[in-house]
Amino acid sequence: MHDLISSLFIKNFSDSEIPDQTDSAIVSLDPGKIAFTTDSFVVDPIFFPGGDIGKLAVCGTVNDIAVSGATPVYLSASFILEEGLPFLDLERVVKSMAEEAKRAGVRIVTGDTKVVNRGKCDKIFITTTGIGSIAEANENIGKGSGIKPGDKIIVNGSLGDHGMAVMSAREDLGISSNIVSDCASLNHLIARALAASDHIKFMRDATRGGLATVLSELVSGKNFGIEIRESELLVRENVRGFCELLGFDPLYVANEGKVVMVVASEDAERVVNAMKQDEFGIDSRIIGEITSDHFGKAWMATRIGGKRIIDMLAGEQLPRIC
Amino acid sequence: MHDLISSLFIKNFSDSEIPDQTDSAIVSLDPGKIAFTTDSFVVDPIFFPGGDIGKLAVCGTVNDIAVSGATPVYLSASFILEEGLPFLDLERVVKSMAEEAKRAGVRIVTGDTKVVNRGKCDKIFITTTGIGSIAEANENIGKGSGIKPGDKIIVNGSLGDHGMAVMSAREDLGISSNIVSDCASLNHLIARALAASDHIKFMRDATRGGLATVLSELVSGKNFGIEIRESELLVRENVRGFCELLGFDPLYVANEGKVVMVVASEDAERVVNAMKQDEFGIDSRIIGEITSDHFGKAWMATRIGGKRIIDMLAGEQLPRIC
Repeated sequence: MHDLISSLFIKNFSDSEIPDQTDSAIVSLDPGKIAFTTDSFVVDPIFFPGGDIGKLAVCGTVNDIAVSGATPVYLSASFILEEGLPFLDLERVVKSMAEEAKRAGVRIVTGDTKVVNRGKCDKIFITTTGIGSIAEANENIGKGSGIKPGDKIIVNGSLGDHGMAVMSAREDLGISSNIVSDCASLNHLIARALAASDHIKFMRDATRGGLATVLSELVSGKNFGIEIRESELLVRENVRGFCELLGFDPLYVANEGKVVMVVASEDAERVVNAMKQDEFGIDSRIIGEITSDHFGKAWMATRIGGKRIIDMLAGEQLPRIC
Repeated sequence: MHDLISSLFIKNFSDSEIPDQTDSAIVSLDPGKIAFTTDSFVVDPIFFPGGDIGKLAVCGTVNDIAVSGATPVYLSASFILEEGLPFLDLERVVKSMAEEAKRAGVRIVTGDTKVVNRGKCDKIFITTTGIGSIAEANENIGKGSGIKPGDKIIVNGSLGDHGMAVMSAREDLGISSNIVSDCASLNHLIARALAASDHIKFMRDATRGGLATVLSELVSGKNFGIEIRESELLVRENVRGFCELLGFDPLYVANEGKVVMVVASEDAERVVNAMKQDEFGIDSRIIGEITSDHFGKAWMATRIGGKRIIDMLAGEQLPRIC
């Protein structure tokens, strides 16, 4: 089994600079600072419409690096496998990671595998860590400095697809749907946006907790407010229906291919147009703006002409959605 | 619970350059290449004499960076927690990580936490990833280039302590011992060795599979051989006894604070003396040398005057020892 796993990794991550998994990879980056991030993925089920735990583990970490304003270059991948995991499942996951890494233009250069007894983990957990180079001008994008009233809020498309795709794939719910996860590496899309404007002031991928969580964290304790328009939010019909059925608000549901940006007003249209050129940005749109009133709060102008506050999610997140 | 965890991490990893766990850390390294490595830790039990899963997760990754010839600087730490894990256990693990990071002089700058349902993992799994800077002169140390007959093999002390400490801590065995894990960050020790010689040709930490695995991997397919002397190997009495009881060979048992080096003959004594100045190198010694005969094989001259071949471990490794 150990040999099978080794040969599987070596075959699929053949880009590796090092043949031996016990070594550190020795790699080069452009001069300057480094973006460094890690995430563990425990999604259940490991295969879902639009992706699998392997693709997700690559996209998630690529996106965390990219939204910090950096260019993701190298990934590590560490696997915790449950004894008895079918080899074909592992192979499918590893191939999916290799394909997604290729698509994103990143290299998986080092890794580890641990096997635990049956019942001591759930099939497969993957932790990916990414490093990337960051231009000096972009070092503060992850922090969101320099945001001011009038700046526009941009999202690259529909909301809630990932979370509802995973929920609908859970056998125990006994419901089927045609919802597909939006799981995607956004680094090329983000590079287009950064090329279109020097005034992208903030980026964050809207994963756990969804758009609402990104907006309420962004505005918390700040001397500005946020107002978004419900009419500008794209929620697919099947996602909306499934959310209603299960009692979820799509604003709070995890996405895995959506970035929220704050961009200077004068550049916002140009950034949206640049994003629309990318396959993952076709539905990009301005959904609202930074306001000079109701400091520290995010509001939504509803379709029926009202206003509602967007709070942090009070209850528990959906478990094992990523 | 989520808030408790966040505050625990922020309090203990206060060295963090970033307050927000969802961000990438933006960090600096010396110019030049980067060493990059990852490991998942699933040790059972999570507390054992001489350490715990947190200390191990720091030491293991620090050592993987250090034996590649690099200086470990930053770590990421990603946690998979089983619902119901006592908060005090988590706190103890996190404090232990913070202490060990401080001792090693590395900073834990980014992380992630996932919680899975009870029974879907075993208490706590930790994946650490490390980055470090590497001087050009040291870039090939992990690969072991330039090794030639006469070069000396050095180990910094006793063998088998970690594996047997963990085994003896397993309640289901019902055996107690006074064995203590050698779990330690070796980066300062290795820095002393590198300062003492420009002719350290290879380093590897003797973890899973023990000293025997390091030597047999090093020699495999090469046009040199290895001969070590059993009389030079240090195995503590309690470790030897416990190994005999359970039917293990200490040469194959995991260490977590032992480095194997190949050093040019003329520098070997100087390197050993430098290592002895370090708290984790007091028992450093030359255990054998590279030979010009029996290509591709590692041999041991036994105490009773015989010779025995050191093969790769044929069976399974001890499970969940790290």
